[in-house]
Amino acid sequence: MKASRFFIGTLKEAPADAEVVSHKLMVRAGMIRRVAGGIYSYLPVGLRSVRKVEAIVREEMNRAGALEVLMPAVQPAELWQESGRWTQYGPELLRFKDRKESDFVMGPTHEEVVTDIARNQIKSYRQLPVNFYQIQTKFRDEIRPRFGVMRGREFTMKDAYSFDKDQAGLEASYRKMFDAYVRIFTRIGLEFRAVTADSGAIGGNRSQEFHVIAATGEDDIAYCPNSDFAANVEAAEALPLIADRAAPSEPMKKTATPGKAKCEAVAEYLNIPLERTIKSIVLATDNEGAEPTIWLLMLRGDHELNEVKTGKLPGLANFRFATEQEIVEWFGTPPGYLGPIGTKKPVQVIADRTVAHMSDFVVGSNEVDYHTTGVNWGRDLPEPTVADIRNVRPGDPSPDGKGTLDICRGIEVGHVFQLGTKYSDAMGATFLDETGKPQSMMMGCYGIGITRILGAAIEQNYDERGIIWPEAIAPFEIVLCPMGYDRSDAVREAADKLYAQLVEAGVDVILDDRGERPGVMFADWELIGVPHRLVIGDRGLKDGKIEYQGRRDTEPTLVPTGEAAAFARARIQEGLEGGVAANRPVEV
Amino acid sequence: MKASRFFIGTLKEAPADAEVVSHKLMVRAGMIRRVAGGIYSYLPVGLRSVRKVEAIVREEMNRAGALEVLMPAVQPAELWQESGRWTQYGPELLRFKDRKESDFVMGPTHEEVVTDIARNQIKSYRQLPVNFYQIQTKFRDEIRPRFGVMRGREFTMKDAYSFDKDQAGLEASYRKMFDAYVRIFTRIGLEFRAVTADSGAIGGNRSQEFHVIAATGEDDIAYCPNSDFAANVEAAEALPLIADRAAPSEPMKKTATPGKAKCEAVAEYLNIPLERTIKSIVLATDNEGAEPTIWLLMLRGDHELNEVKTGKLPGLANFRFATEQEIVEWFGTPPGYLGPIGTKKPVQVIADRTVAHMSDFVVGSNEVDYHTTGVNWGRDLPEPTVADIRNVRPGDPSPDGKGTLDICRGIEVGHVFQLGTKYSDAMGATFLDETGKPQSMMMGCYGIGITRILGAAIEQNYDERGIIWPEAIAPFEIVLCPMGYDRSDAVREAADKLYAQLVEAGVDVILDDRGERPGVMFADWELIGVPHRLVIGDRGLKDGKIEYQGRRDTEPTLVPTGEAAAFARARIQEGLEGGVAANRPVEV
Repeated sequence: MKASRFFIGTLKEAPADAEVVSHKLMVRAGMIRRVAGGIYSYLPVGLRSVRKVEAIVREEMNRAGALEVLMPAVQPAELWQESGRWTQYGPELLRFKDRKESDFVMGPTHEEVVTDIARNQIKSYRQLPVNFYQIQTKFRDEIRPRFGVMRGREFTMKDAYSFDKDQAGLEASYRKMFDAYVRIFTRIGLEFRAVTADSGAIGGNRSQEFHVIAATGEDDIAYCPNSDFAANVEAAEALPLIADRAAPSEPMKKTATPGKAKCEAVAEYLNIPLERTIKSIVLATDNEGAEPTIWLLMLRGDHELNEVKTGKLPGLANFRFATEQEIVEWFGTPPGYLGPIGTKKPVQVIADRTVAHMSDFVVGSNEVDYHTTGVNWGRDLPEPTVADIRNVRPGDPSPDGKGTLDICRGIEVGHVFQLGTKYSDAMGATFLDETGKPQSMMMGCYGIGITRILGAAIEQNYDERGIIWPEAIAPFEIVLCPMGYDRSDAVREAADKLYAQLVEAGVDVILDDRGERPGVMFADWELIGVPHRLVIGDRGLKDGKIEYQGRRDTEPTLVPTGEAAAFARARIQEGLEGGVAANRPVEV
Repeated sequence: MKASRFFIGTLKEAPADAEVVSHKLMVRAGMIRRVAGGIYSYLPVGLRSVRKVEAIVREEMNRAGALEVLMPAVQPAELWQESGRWTQYGPELLRFKDRKESDFVMGPTHEEVVTDIARNQIKSYRQLPVNFYQIQTKFRDEIRPRFGVMRGREFTMKDAYSFDKDQAGLEASYRKMFDAYVRIFTRIGLEFRAVTADSGAIGGNRSQEFHVIAATGEDDIAYCPNSDFAANVEAAEALPLIADRAAPSEPMKKTATPGKAKCEAVAEYLNIPLERTIKSIVLATDNEGAEPTIWLLMLRGDHELNEVKTGKLPGLANFRFATEQEIVEWFGTPPGYLGPIGTKKPVQVIADRTVAHMSDFVVGSNEVDYHTTGVNWGRDLPEPTVADIRNVRPGDPSPDGKGTLDICRGIEVGHVFQLGTKYSDAMGATFLDETGKPQSMMMGCYGIGITRILGAAIEQNYDERGIIWPEAIAPFEIVLCPMGYDRSDAVREAADKLYAQLVEAGVDVILDDRGERPGVMFADWELIGVPHRLVIGDRGLKDGKIEYQGRRDTEPTLVPTGEAAAFARARIQEGLEGGVAANRPVEV
């Protein structure tokens, strides 16, 4: 490509609404342009990277045996009513009526449509397994779209859906997708982790997320530096921090703690470690036609509630936080001094695993300005229901027993799920097995945020001058910057020759033939993030040299003119092959 | 591809709602599956053809210098309000509100979004010309979606928008697109015509349509077999059929024509040729705060009104047919015996070009059961306003003077428009010209119905057994049908070897390794429309032969086993290169 025939729309200023670096840089580099909140157009520079991501994803999906289909963006409400998600899905689901007043949705995901295809097209076990995927526009009506393409409303996803005859088949299909994802993100050139995930609203059983590691990520990921363990903090198992419960050594005693409602204040006031205090969290679950059930969740003073794990406990699927009125009714006191002993009405007590191993601890007395110290399970109150209800923290033991956890931030770019029969049961997607009996198909689903990958890649790879693209998804692999293309015959001829050589070799090269000043050229291409650059100038040519500089290099390298094309190709190849595999271990 | 790893979803029965052959065959071949009215999923077989069409379109658009972008499907109402189309566009425009109650549309076209990009990104004449295109999902809320993918609601289009600094630039951009379209449809392998078109609701000046010629087409196309002339009948110019007006030879006379309200009945009753009678059509245009203007349009008795051309006449842009009440008020009589002479209130008379050259003609007398004969312009009534207001008919002189017209039916698959400054004026898309003065950008827009092409290709190429794909967009170029793949080692080895040879040569081949009976295999692949087939059987192999058969061939050809791959490649190549260019002249 020659720059004079291309469209370069770089901007000096980032948009006022851009909060993160990838959003700022994508707009400034002329990759995207805002159309409405969370809705963008991809300009030529940006779309080149999108297409490269798509091509890698498509190649690896095909290699894994998945078959490409294309399902519609607009879906009839009937299918969502069949699966139950018409009512379950929140306002992120864009619902609308067509001119005949029929209900439709703009698809944020395609389980319903693909299950409808499967139940109609698949009759026999002989047609299984099959895995349908598509690369397609999705819409999710985010309440607060932000971070550019990372949390937009309209975006491109690859979504795949596998159908198997049994759990063993699903495991195999799932593994194939997992392996394909590892290849995809490795080829793209990103530092990433596969982490155990909560399966969230899509439902089902096992699931893992693929996160691009970046300080600006929205998700906290717990991982063990010594092992393969990695999990979204939402889902990471928290082990008890105390191995065995010590015998009681103090008497239980009500103590004045005037104005000390928080654990930190109580610990300081009583001059005890925070790890001796208990945080009481009151939840409620509603019962049709009866009063709600009130739950008291007990966490160590320095721990935080994990709402995702809590929501998976028996009876707590639809929990909410209790109202102040409910708290007063059940505990006889407003929040601040709550505890499990002497409630006014019965509450369901759940102790975190660590709390269950504590002794001589401090809880609220259910009376303003009072706490009770020296509390012990069994002696002062009944043994509790024990559950894992807290977030892991750095330094916690890894659940695999291979060391301690650390926490980093990640941007979710992929997700693999075992759905099981959730949708096939709801929508009657059955097949006849070897004995002629109808069985529900076992489903898996597998997503990759195509456009989000661009944002994530930038969050991981940029500097003060702009983007630094991994070679595999750069809009161009290399830029040729001739100094005085319009003035010097020697420069023009050398640049044109180099361009022809690189095109011939299949390199994705852009020749900046605009005749701009070097400062403008360099600034544009550094902002756009082209990873390799050759500068052709009269001075260098006189010495038989061309200047090569990698986007991360601090200094240029002088290369003999005749070797410049081969030199650049070798650098690009190194980037495509080596970078990630060499120094970024993949945790799986 | 091996069939055992692919998904073949052929059906015995066509869906009940399928009216046209392409719809029936696409469903039966397992190419598409209905999701809702006019909304389809593309299954693996169908998507392969879609992707091949896209690849050809993309290649030719890039070759023509257009730059690919991707604009959103969901567009904010503000942009459509700016252009005026928010109110002008009919109920085909799907309008909806997001969760914040802001108005949006699902884009049926992208003039507004691209003009918004241009006005923000293009500041100087130095950035022009530029042509942005995308291949993207569109939505048009058809009142009666039908014909499968040919008149669906959600569909894939290629749309391109050129921006130039002046009319000469626009002409050049338009010509580039026109030429690219000729290459695209020629490469796809379709018999097509480029025809002069009405520019319809998108507005602007010059426009041409590309039609695939097929008996089931929705459009009538007038063309001259001896020249390049071709135009949609909507837009085709109708010349006067009488060169000079003869002098009056009859006196004007009111004649009883009891119960003869139609021209045919009048001609028969009076025993004169239908060509002597005049058809009177009454239109009305509304005037704010005043009574409407009533128009009398006069056509020869055997001619039909062309509403599109009529709507372009001065004052008639928003015409409607007059009500019976208006007709009685202005003509003093209900419809059936209307004429230009002796109306009760003044009417605007417009005579078709042919009518203007007639003499001694017959019109209604504005009295039930009476017509007036021997009517002559100038003598009996004033010279009329003359205009081209009728549809051309087969046998009419071609407007280019090179013969007579014929009419065929076509399916519109592409359209090129000169928009001029309609959108850039409305939305303030200006650039600074060489003298530093702001000027509105000159725009063109250029569409291709990607998914509609599949339907059109089938309407042009099928037989009682199924689809007959042009090689360039066939789901597979060739199928290998081994007879007893699972039973005969010799057959399996020969088939595998042939498959490897063809894959190696870059042929898009599918090996039917399912172990189905020959009848099932042949029926499936003939229905799917794979254009070439090799049958490998024990009997043939013993004689050193493999059976080749083209999809249109009535008999197989025996080819020596060792030459089969080369033979098949040659046939495929002939199809890709020769077919269209050789025997389907392109009218441009």
